[in-house]
Order: sequence, then C-alpha cells, then structure tokens
Amino acid sequence: MVSQDMSDMTPREVRQAIREGKWTGPTAGMAPEFVQANLVIVPSDWAFDLLLFSQRNPRPCPLLEVTEPGDPEPRELAAGSDIRTDLPRYRVYRDGVLAEEPTDIRDLWRDDLVSFLIGCSFTFEGALMDAGVPVRHVEMGVNVPMYITSVPCRPAGRLKGQVVMSMRPIPAVMIARAVSTTALFPAVHGAPLHVGEPGMIGIEDLSRPDFGDPVEIREGEIPVFWGCGVTPQAALMASKPPFAITHSPGHMFLTDRKDREYSVF
Amino acid sequence: MVSQDMSDMTPREVRQAIREGKWTGPTAGMAPEFVQANLVIVPSDWAFDLLLFSQRNPRPCPLLEVTEPGDPEPRELAAGSDIRTDLPRYRVYRDGVLAEEPTDIRDLWRDDLVSFLIGCSFTFEGALMDAGVPVRHVEMGVNVPMYITSVPCRPAGRLKGQVVMSMRPIPAVMIARAVSTTALFPAVHGAPLHVGEPGMIGIEDLSRPDFGDPVEIREGEIPVFWGCGVTPQAALMASKPPFAITHSPGHMFLTDRKDREYSVF
Repeated sequence: MVSQDMSDMTPREVRQAIREGKWTGPTAGMAPEFVQANLVIVPSDWAFDLLLFSQRNPRPCPLLEVTEPGDPEPRELAAGSDIRTDLPRYRVYRDGVLAEEPTDIRDLWRDDLVSFLIGCSFTFEGALMDAGVPVRHVEMGVNVPMYITSVPCRPAGRLKGQVVMSMRPIPAVMIARAVSTTALFPAVHGAPLHVGEPGMIGIEDLSRPDFGDPVEIREGEIPVFWGCGVTPQAALMASKPPFAITHSPGHMFLTDRKDREYSVF
Repeated sequence: MVSQDMSDMTPREVRQAIREGKWTGPTAGMAPEFVQANLVIVPSDWAFDLLLFSQRNPRPCPLLEVTEPGDPEPRELAAGSDIRTDLPRYRVYRDGVLAEEPTDIRDLWRDDLVSFLIGCSFTFEGALMDAGVPVRHVEMGVNVPMYITSVPCRPAGRLKGQVVMSMRPIPAVMIARAVSTTALFPAVHGAPLHVGEPGMIGIEDLSRPDFGDPVEIREGEIPVFWGCGVTPQAALMASKPPFAITHSPGHMFLTDRKDREYSVF
C-alpha cells in the first residue's frame, strides 16, 4: 500500500522517489487529481503503425503524448521527467514475449525508441465519483475488470486486434449521468462503447474477465463498457515486434497534468 | 455557384460528378450537414512527422482519417471513394513550391503516398447557426478570415510553425453559447483558442487576414479565434517536402459522415 506520506506528494515528488529507487510498487491512489498514463515504447520503425492505430481507434487508444525518437522526456505531460527511470516497474518484450520486468530501463535505451503515453480511465473515474456515480472496483479495492470483446479495432499497418473494454456496473437510474460525465472526457476514453448486452460484444461470462478482477453486479445495475488502454498493447504484442517496453500493470507514469484539464468543459 | 441540382445531391453523387469531370469548382454549400475535409498527401517518409504534428496540435489539426501508404480510398469517411479523382481541384507542391493545380491526380499517384483528411470548421459552423449564433462570413458570402498568429505549434520532427486561427465576430452575449457549442466538437477544432484580444496573439490588423477575406465586426461583437486546418499545411510547406499534394482552397473532399457524428453528445 501507498503510505500516507506518499499520497500527499506532488507527482514530481513521486517521480523523484521512484527515480531514486525508493518506490517500486503500484501507483494507484498516488497524487490524486493528477493524470496517470499507460506507457508503450517501440522502435521508430513500428511507431508509425502504432500512431496510426491510435488515430484510428481513439476511444480505446487515447494518446496523451508521443515523444520524438530517442527523446526520454515527455515534456508536455511532465517537464523534467525521464521515461527511463520515473515509472516504478517496466515490462520488456522481445519478439512479443515478456523477457524481464526491471525497475529502470536506462541500460536498454536506444536512439530509435519512441514513447507513447496513453490515457487511463483513472481520469474519468474521479469525475464519475464526483458526480455521485458509484465505481464498484474502487469500492471493492480491486482492479477494474477488462474483457477482450468481439468488436474489431480498425487495423493499421501490422497492427490489428479486438477492442478491450473495461466494465463498470452502473445503477440504471444513473446510466445517463455516467454517459454524459465520461463523454466530456474524449481525450481519456470518452463515453461508453456499449451499454447493457455483454453477449452482443462477445462476452460470455462477466465473472471471468480477461484482465483485472471480477466485480459484483447488484440488482438494478447495468454493465457499462468503456474502451480500455490495454487495447493498443494487446494489438502490438500480437504482432510480435522485435523489441518493446511497457509499464508493468498498475505501475503507471504520474504526470503533472490535472484530470480536469482533459475535460471538454 | 453550385446549382440547385447539385446542392440536393448526396455526397456520393457529388463525388461521382466530380470524378466524371462534371464539377471542378468549390464545394461550399454542397451536401449540407455532411462533413467536408481538408486534404494533405505526403510520401510515407514524411507521414510520421505529420501524424505526430497532428497528435501534438489537435485543435488546429484534427485528423478525421489517415490512409495506409498507397491506399487511395479513405474508407471510413467515404467507402468506395477515390482520393485521386473525387476532389474538384488539387494543388501539387514540389520542394514546397506550388507546381500545378490539376483536377485529377491519378498520374501522380505513388505506392508510398499517405493521405491525411483533416477536419474543417464548416462542421461546427452549422451547429453555431443552429444555436442562433451568427456566422458573419457566411452571412456576407465570403471566405472566413484566417490569421497566422504568434502562438507556436508544438513542433514534431521536421515540422514546426505558428498556429493559424480563423476568426468569427460573436455578439458579447453569445460568447458563452459559441464556446460551449463548439467545445462539443473536439474532433473538428473544438472550443476557441482565444477570445477578444487579437494583439495578444500577434494579430495587428483584423482587416488584413493572412488568408481568406476580412469581415465586418459590429458594435458589441468580440473577435473569437478557433484553430484552423490551414495550420498543418503551412507547417508542412515551410519545411519544403520534396513532394506533397493538397486540395485547392475551397475545393474540399465530401464525406459520407454527418456533422453531428462528430459531436461529443
């Protein structure tokens, strides 16, 4: 668990602590109100495909920042940060296979690496809770359930796959509020992609998510599905690039941008 | 002028007429309620820079579709269309210099060309007028005034430049409505970038726009500035790519997508 001391830190202070090796755990609950981002790093000869894939699938793949080849600093999200040291844990893939899970990737850095920082639903969940909409997996203290659906992504170059969606059970009377609240955050997944019929999107059993944890669906609640940032990572790995680095699940990049900067209003 | 016959045509019918050489003029007023798009075509070795530039500057450079290298069909915007024949007039640039202005680019097509279809403020102007907000250049029957501002774009690779903004004079009592109406269209420029002080963004004389025509600003009206799709074209040409093709100003690509599909709600 994150100590009380850490949850009071600014994102910059948290990144510094991570850089110094003082924190190697998950980032949930750290620097609340600030955007946390998913990370995918690929060599430049894969970057165009991934950028195009994200442009074509903006709901599951909302790009917050893409760096120049070789530049380790995502300067719009966090001036002075270093993508090679400022996440608590990384995953390194070779030919699509997980090879190692280091806490620092300085030794692996190359001049042709391009970093993709991808929006995360943590951002709109704060807005949902502020609007009085319950977020079950937060209440339960577990990870959000995610499902590989039958909905195809629009392919791009070598990348293709199905849309991965996260699910939150929403009381029927609050569906409209949940839709309108998240629609105002198009830069971080936006409105739901599907409401109410899991079978129509190829989900046979809600109690068995492909990633994350199952959550309770109570009487009068409808399962609501949003695009999930795991989508681009899944599409990328399926095409087995020779080299790629991602964040380790739950070990995100903390930015200096506030959640509300990504709202339409 | 567009004949009454043509303004009643579907976008597909208009594209067919253009493809057959029956129309080579501007597209303003054609297929109202359907999205018209700006076009920039570059060789694939420039496509990553342009895609990255657009990702970093989404307000002036809202991408509606980017094709695979060599693919002439923007299939999401208009299935069955052909980008080489379906615009009334093109501009061909060599080393950043305008070389010719053909009505068909089949002879110039190459396997490495990537087409960028970029959103146009025609889309949100319909919403403004529906909301009762006057749009002066439409009333006057002239082109919207556009200004090269002092606001820098975020550079990307070889591309850099200043944000070009279009200006519409809005009655002071309607500024809020104009902001909220256009904010709901983040995919086509979104909310204004600046309201009310042209000098702060480097505009010395509103009566002398860099592109388009000047418009009357009446008593009680405030100049309001939106990101303009000329921005990526200006940044691209300034870096003098060996080869590029754009639409000829006002001679846009008519899509099968309706304006309202691009609203957040």
